Amino acid sequence: MRRPVTLFTGQWADLPLETLCEKASAFGYDGLELACWGDHFEVDKADEAYCKEKRALLEKHGLKVFSISSHLVGQAVSDRIDERHKSILPDYVWGDGDPKGVNQRAAEEIIKTGESAVRLGVSVVNGFTGSPIWHLLYGFPPTPSSMIDEGYRIFASQWKPIMDAYQDLGVRFGLEVHPTEIAFDIASARKALDAMDNHPAFGFNYDPSHLGYQGVDYVSFIDTFRDRIFHVHMKDAGWSDVPVEAGVFGGHTEFGTPGRYWDFRSLGRGKIQFEEIIRALNRIGYRGPLSVEWEDSGMDREHGAKEACAFVKSIDFPPSEIDFDAAFEDK
Amino acid sequence: MRRPVTLFTGQWADLPLETLCEKASAFGYDGLELACWGDHFEVDKADEAYCKEKRALLEKHGLKVFSISSHLVGQAVSDRIDERHKSILPDYVWGDGDPKGVNQRAAEEIIKTGESAVRLGVSVVNGFTGSPIWHLLYGFPPTPSSMIDEGYRIFASQWKPIMDAYQDLGVRFGLEVHPTEIAFDIASARKALDAMDNHPAFGFNYDPSHLGYQGVDYVSFIDTFRDRIFHVHMKDAGWSDVPVEAGVFGGHTEFGTPGRYWDFRSLGRGKIQFEEIIRALNRIGYRGPLSVEWEDSGMDREHGAKEACAFVKSIDFPPSEIDFDAAFEDK
Amino acid sequence: MRRPVTLFTGQWADLPLETLCEKASAFGYDGLELACWGDHFEVDKADEAYCKEKRALLEKHGLKVFSISSHLVGQAVSDRIDERHKSILPDYVWGDGDPKGVNQRAAEEIIKTGESAVRLGVSVVNGFTGSPIWHLLYGFPPTPSSMIDEGYRIFASQWKPIMDAYQDLGVRFGLEVHPTEIAFDIASARKALDAMDNHPAFGFNYDPSHLGYQGVDYVSFIDTFRDRIFHVHMKDAGWSDVPVEAGVFGGHTEFGTPGRYWDFRSLGRGKIQFEEIIRALNRIGYRGPLSVEWEDSGMDREHGAKEACAFVKSIDFPPSEIDFDAAFEDK
Amino acid sequence: MRRPVTLFTGQWADLPLETLCEKASAFGYDGLELACWGDHFEVDKADEAYCKEKRALLEKHGLKVFSISSHLVGQAVSDRIDERHKSILPDYVWGDGDPKGVNQRAAEEIIKTGESAVRLGVSVVNGFTGSPIWHLLYGFPPTPSSMIDEGYRIFASQWKPIMDAYQDLGVRFGLEVHPTEIAFDIASARKALDAMDNHPAFGFNYDPSHLGYQGVDYVSFIDTFRDRIFHVHMKDAGWSDVPVEAGVFGGHTEFGTPGRYWDFRSLGRGKIQFEEIIRALNRIGYRGPLSVEWEDSGMDREHGAKEACAFVKSIDFPPSEIDFDAAFEDK
Amino acid sequence: MRRPVTLFTGQWADLPLETLCEKASAFGYDGLELACWGDHFEVDKADEAYCKEKRALLEKHGLKVFSISSHLVGQAVSDRIDERHKSILPDYVWGDGDPKGVNQRAAEEIIKTGESAVRLGVSVVNGFTGSPIWHLLYGFPPTPSSMIDEGYRIFASQWKPIMDAYQDLGVRFGLEVHPTEIAFDIASARKALDAMDNHPAFGFNYDPSHLGYQGVDYVSFIDTFRDRIFHVHMKDAGWSDVPVEAGVFGGHTEFGTPGRYWDFRSLGRGKIQFEEIIRALNRIGYRGPLSVEWEDSGMDREHGAKEACAFVKSIDFPPSEIDFDAAFEDK
Amino acid sequence: MRRPVTLFTGQWADLPLETLCEKASAFGYDGLELACWGDHFEVDKADEAYCKEKRALLEKHGLKVFSISSHLVGQAVSDRIDERHKSILPDYVWGDGDPKGVNQRAAEEIIKTGESAVRLGVSVVNGFTGSPIWHLLYGFPPTPSSMIDEGYRIFASQWKPIMDAYQDLGVRFGLEVHPTEIAFDIASARKALDAMDNHPAFGFNYDPSHLGYQGVDYVSFIDTFRDRIFHVHMKDAGWSDVPVEAGVFGGHTEFGTPGRYWDFRSLGRGKIQFEEIIRALNRIGYRGPLSVEWEDSGMDREHGAKEACAFVKSIDFPPSEIDFDAAFEDK
Repeated sequence: MRRPVTLFTGQWADLPLETLCEKASAFGYDGLELACWGDHFEVDKADEAYCKEKRALLEKHGLKVFSISSHLVGQAVSDRIDERHKSILPDYVWGDGDPKGVNQRAAEEIIKTGESAVRLGVSVVNGFTGSPIWHLLYGFPPTPSSMIDEGYRIFASQWKPIMDAYQDLGVRFGLEVHPTEIAFDIASARKALDAMDNHPAFGFNYDPSHLGYQGVDYVSFIDTFRDRIFHVHMKDAGWSDVPVEAGVFGGHTEFGTPGRYWDFRSLGRGKIQFEEIIRALNRIGYRGPLSVEWEDSGMDREHGAKEACAFVKSIDFPPSEIDFDAAFEDK
Repeated sequence: MRRPVTLFTGQWADLPLETLCEKASAFGYDGLELACWGDHFEVDKADEAYCKEKRALLEKHGLKVFSISSHLVGQAVSDRIDERHKSILPDYVWGDGDPKGVNQRAAEEIIKTGESAVRLGVSVVNGFTGSPIWHLLYGFPPTPSSMIDEGYRIFASQWKPIMDAYQDLGVRFGLEVHPTEIAFDIASARKALDAMDNHPAFGFNYDPSHLGYQGVDYVSFIDTFRDRIFHVHMKDAGWSDVPVEAGVFGGHTEFGTPGRYWDFRSLGRGKIQFEEIIRALNRIGYRGPLSVEWEDSGMDREHGAKEACAFVKSIDFPPSEIDFDAAFEDK
Repeated sequence: MRRPVTLFTGQWADLPLETLCEKASAFGYDGLELACWGDHFEVDKADEAYCKEKRALLEKHGLKVFSISSHLVGQAVSDRIDERHKSILPDYVWGDGDPKGVNQRAAEEIIKTGESAVRLGVSVVNGFTGSPIWHLLYGFPPTPSSMIDEGYRIFASQWKPIMDAYQDLGVRFGLEVHPTEIAFDIASARKALDAMDNHPAFGFNYDPSHLGYQGVDYVSFIDTFRDRIFHVHMKDAGWSDVPVEAGVFGGHTEFGTPGRYWDFRSLGRGKIQFEEIIRALNRIGYRGPLSVEWEDSGMDREHGAKEACAFVKSIDFPPSEIDFDAAFEDK
Repeated sequence: MRRPVTLFTGQWADLPLETLCEKASAFGYDGLELACWGDHFEVDKADEAYCKEKRALLEKHGLKVFSISSHLVGQAVSDRIDERHKSILPDYVWGDGDPKGVNQRAAEEIIKTGESAVRLGVSVVNGFTGSPIWHLLYGFPPTPSSMIDEGYRIFASQWKPIMDAYQDLGVRFGLEVHPTEIAFDIASARKALDAMDNHPAFGFNYDPSHLGYQGVDYVSFIDTFRDRIFHVHMKDAGWSDVPVEAGVFGGHTEFGTPGRYWDFRSLGRGKIQFEEIIRALNRIGYRGPLSVEWEDSGMDREHGAKEACAFVKSIDFPPSEIDFDAAFEDK
Repeated sequence: MRRPVTLFTGQWADLPLETLCEKASAFGYDGLELACWGDHFEVDKADEAYCKEKRALLEKHGLKVFSISSHLVGQAVSDRIDERHKSILPDYVWGDGDPKGVNQRAAEEIIKTGESAVRLGVSVVNGFTGSPIWHLLYGFPPTPSSMIDEGYRIFASQWKPIMDAYQDLGVRFGLEVHPTEIAFDIASARKALDAMDNHPAFGFNYDPSHLGYQGVDYVSFIDTFRDRIFHVHMKDAGWSDVPVEAGVFGGHTEFGTPGRYWDFRSLGRGKIQFEEIIRALNRIGYRGPLSVEWEDSGMDREHGAKEACAFVKSIDFPPSEIDFDAAFEDK
Repeated sequence: MRRPVTLFTGQWADLPLETLCEKASAFGYDGLELACWGDHFEVDKADEAYCKEKRALLEKHGLKVFSISSHLVGQAVSDRIDERHKSILPDYVWGDGDPKGVNQRAAEEIIKTGESAVRLGVSVVNGFTGSPIWHLLYGFPPTPSSMIDEGYRIFASQWKPIMDAYQDLGVRFGLEVHPTEIAFDIASARKALDAMDNHPAFGFNYDPSHLGYQGVDYVSFIDTFRDRIFHVHMKDAGWSDVPVEAGVFGGHTEFGTPGRYWDFRSLGRGKIQFEEIIRALNRIGYRGPLSVEWEDSGMDREHGAKEACAFVKSIDFPPSEIDFDAAFEDK
């Protein structure tokens, strides 16, 4: 009766999928959320035969797949492109690197990703969107609200056509709400949905780790967007109880640097209250996978992925189907 | 024995300085920290006569001046220039708006600001620096540390010549550590000092309000950079005890929007622990002004500036000059 | 620009109004919220002459009046009447004490109270409503929701005719949300408004002290019912940080008993965060009086009423009428 | 060496005892605390043969029994009877529903329950008492202490004869301190004991879940009434860290309604600190069963009852029997 | 109606009493608590004339005296004497420094102090007792309870004769519960009273500052020893919310060293909750002086003594003399 | 890949080593940290044959040994000797009990302990040092810093020769920082290292339980003395969230007395955050054993030692050996 526990393969793209299948199976996972990079799921190769082969590989290891994820290409759809994007994009998307062209090719690739999802037999594509206005973050020099509004308009003009295509395909897109994306908390997620006119194909890949350290009510996120929770990441983060040297903006330090306000942590070792998340997911009737995105700069990843799988299984539980007073009253 | 309490005029630039002098004097202030915008202190006009006149105006209202502040032009020295800078720069600095040219003219203006400070008779210029790498804030797409390092190198190449000129002038620059600047917490402030090779003219205009909500140890900031606290802003901020809709990154909302994690608050109404700040300032021997930068989107500013002046006077106190046990032992 | 500070006379009904006027004026109050008991405001005598005389008495002491309050009679409209009501009702309302009759006569008295409010020249009557379902509080033995619904129906059937009369009179009724009333938190206040079909004459006399110790979000109450805040009580309560002997239900102990979880406290000495209340009142545009209901079983009431007046004056402040960035931009 | 872990059957009365025995045994329980409703333990049928049969049924499933529980009939002994009691009482206790008669018949039934406990071979009957004064909870309209005292006198007059009978039988009654009962926190429990003149047959079925959310020191309860802890329920409750819509009085909402201050939770998922409870039980030398009363409106009860059994086993531990320094000193 | 606010002169013994009288009067104090060192109150000179002269000096400055304090000599009664005592004792008490002799002479001096208190016209002597067992603090090497018991026996044998003399004189001794004394928290204070067989002349000079940072319930101290609160010190202490370098045992650092867990603080600037102390003092009916013992290694003492006086006046308030419901009921 | 988990035998010296080996092996331990008392490791008998035999005994039970511990004799090296030391020292060290002689013989015994460590094949001796200045703890009567300095000088004069001998032997000494020792927090540990001129053979047996309740930053301890963490004890302690009767100084009460501020607790049942400790140990590259020092006055020690072993295994984890972004970038 518990939900399937999958492993998001994005942080393991240095390993061939076959190797990862062996490991994930040994760690106890029920399935994989395939990243569209490395050899895990290659959109440009994903014809029927390719998809069948991937399915077979997974099945051989007793693993299921419920979604694929395109964070890297998705990021390039609405971002202001710079040199960093080259390192995360396939050459055929990067092309000559001209920003407009990169945005356009990334958008096309996301549509193709939806098409290959259909071929693989899954109906959810998770990913990032990028944002044309992330650099306006703090609002100084004084930023007129018109600049913010314009950013959401650009975003919507880029993603509505993609979502129309997804709707035709019967596929949905789950944005992982996250810094550097068009939505990174409840307020900006609401703006994004508004800008998209609540397009039915556009929703969220819920991930509490990016919200908790910001001070965002990540449980309320689920209730607020109850019909838009298309997929769920299980990822933990820790943050400091005491003031530190590198604040929540990160002080231009890397993950794991002593003195940082926050870091990702192996599941159960941070501050995310998963108990409340499971209760909220039960309230809204989410029955999809709980997908572990494992990241902890201070722990061996294999040790971590194994303990995370066990942790997630231990915290999931089914909702009630009985009325207590009714039982009590049966005199 | 208490320190002078001044009012930073930046948030009052819609008022002629004379009007503000009347008000500040009535509010109880001992002096003003003149902003280099509005008619408060105009660098391009600041010859000897102008400076003398300003002095006279202040004296007429019983007000002193210890520093001038150039946040707006300073921001343009190292920022990646966009349309927002036009609205905060004098036309002669903005010019044709070409980014390189704007950076350059802003740098020259900051040197002239130092020169006019000398003419006005003050030895501290406060301000912002801008930053070529603020947009890299979260570090995704993956940002190689070389890009961060390069940003600090650019910053140093722009500010070292200015600081050399300041040193010759006998003036010091106090960067207000603040989001969107090259330094916004202890970790990034340390990097900035390193990049500047600890240039003796370069230090900080300490302001706790920008540090507290980030989770930065704003008291430790004072002890850490004890010889670099050139000037002190008194400004308060409040932040939420409970998770909210618009997290610490602001959710692209404006100050004062319900559901924000943090906002500036009139002094004494936020969460900054000024008691500990005064003790730290006493420890390092800071004897300069305590300058109120008043900002609270939910309060009438005149009401606030008055209560803030009284508040700051009430919290300041002189350090001990006696050894208690010694007094005790006098049998 | 601050709001008038009034003293609710309910806790001083042992004193003749004239005596209280002298004291309140000396304590620094701007006015009184007259209780409809003692000789403070007697509904059965309140003809034009009586009202004129009361007005004159207040004016003589420099005091204003913005509302009258009928907590005791109001309580009897919807309560299940028992021996305790006899001690708080005028004889002509109690009559023979038959519950139905008492409910009916109390309802009529509340209409008369509204009529006399008009004669006195005020447009708000504050008070309690009582509740037919307070005794069902915990829900054991198992209480079907139909019993709760029926209670709200009874309440509405009793109060709608009163509110219709009030609407005709141009008077509004402010229920003080409070244990033993039909509404005692946000959830039950919403049910009460629903039951009343949002009758325009029915709203609230906001009082945070009854909400805070229950764990109710008393600031959110203001935003939630922003057009229903007809009047505001300033009253403080303290509650324990550590577990105690007599919990929040009171353990059948009296106020002030050591070991209680909570007690009323003189203003500023409890845990209510008035800063946030003033900000919320500013947000919704409430401009009426801040009326001190003073109660603290551990303090001399005259000492307390005086300090409370000063406290309330000190915490009130006007909202902003300026846009900060605008001021900042005035280069 | 750990204590037996039993399951209180009250919340499972919709299932035949045989079915429940199978389940409880599979869940890992050591025994059952039989509810005197459903077919679990029927007082009116409980002759020697019946009791023997029940014993045999339990033994067949490897289950023990240490107590029986009569919450529903107990509630009717001292309560002000209304329509709700009809649904929780056997017809022969309800009779014609006349309150005095119901009280009387309930009292007689509790004595018979004690007699059948003897036949079953257990010496503890747990249950509720009801209360004639629960409706006076908040104390408004002003409630003279004489009314409270009178309530305790009535309670004692109803329960002393029952307790005398129990003493003769060699059976003890454990009141579950709980809202709507004569005792619901430490203060009221003390009053109840006083009213009962510390009758040796009268004590408590300790249950922390009803105390914690009230702010009552549930650990101190154990030390305070150390010789009166006749039986122990393990039940958890969660309550909010942040202010909510429906406060601790419940806002007339049902369990599990979003926005409530508190709810029961599966063991280990709430805020009760069982570590401290086990230490206190060790201090007072309690060696009886730890009986799980499972209730969580958000979880499947079979999932919950199983995890609760494992949880309770994991938290119990035996006290020390050695003096550490002594071991250390053995040079 | 507020209590007199006095200044304990112990920390000012480097100043002649006349100078201090001028200052204390200017600071706003109502009186002085005279230290028996410096020239403030010299026991060996305190004949009738001396006492009369001191009284006259105080009266000349409008100051009262309610007690004298002998912390330094008192310390030497039960301490294990070492070189440090030489610096705090009059030569005639130190003598040849032989421990037994010092203890004996100190005891005699304390009796003489009581006699001179009578001559001065006060009935309370405050002070320390020292302790023969402070060095056994942590209990390692393993310390048999017999060694602790023996310490209390020694203490009692030294102080009972003194207290008998006090009782004859009509004077009482208030031990300031404090580290290095026989009593330093509630548990050890209880042991001390037990050892003294609750001698009626032996009680406490209550001072919360020495208790708070230890984690001792300083409010409960007042209720626990309600008939033994002979005198009250107002002194504040701050302690850290976050872990530090030098823990509560002090790390052999001096007051004011950065990184210490705790330090004394000017009144109102530490963590002592004086609100609760005043309420407790009201509960037990203490009507004596509130005596400021001012100590803060980070603040100028004259600034501090002045603000402390105003602070203490502001927090004191008289208890209630009315029953609220009674006032409410006056229909 | 996890660290070995050993059991410190000091608290089990009432059992013959052979018995303890059986138990420890059954509890799941990987090895023992042998105490130099009881028959566990007798320095005076520890010739080659003895050591070989001990090794064989351990190996027979599948147990390793990484260190031996000499807390009791070590304590006597720098302590002010009194009757308590007699009970913890071998007769040949105590001798005639003359303090100087005891100190001297204890020092010699510690050197012999190092020599026998070599024979046993381990390179770490853990232990206490005692302290000549622990009795000066609070600093009253006023304690000149010269007395503290002198204490550290004495300590160093006693321990430097021992450490020189250790260095020659290739053995290191790990002081367990602990009340009553020369070092009991970070500040005093730094002083001890300074006094020892950072002798390379002198470092620490890290044990968080003695630091946490003092308010000492026990995680920072590891980073601060990163090259001096020679050995690690796993021991937990609990302390109170609410004020109590016997404060942190212990009130001369024994462990486990109700009302104490703190007590040792079985691992995982106190407040030490082992997660952060493991991360810090990973940061500094500590690869030695995690040695359980089990102590909990409220729990059966065999139950506890078993659960502690499982707990420590569950919390240990290996550090990361991969760069996440690198994995992510593998497009």
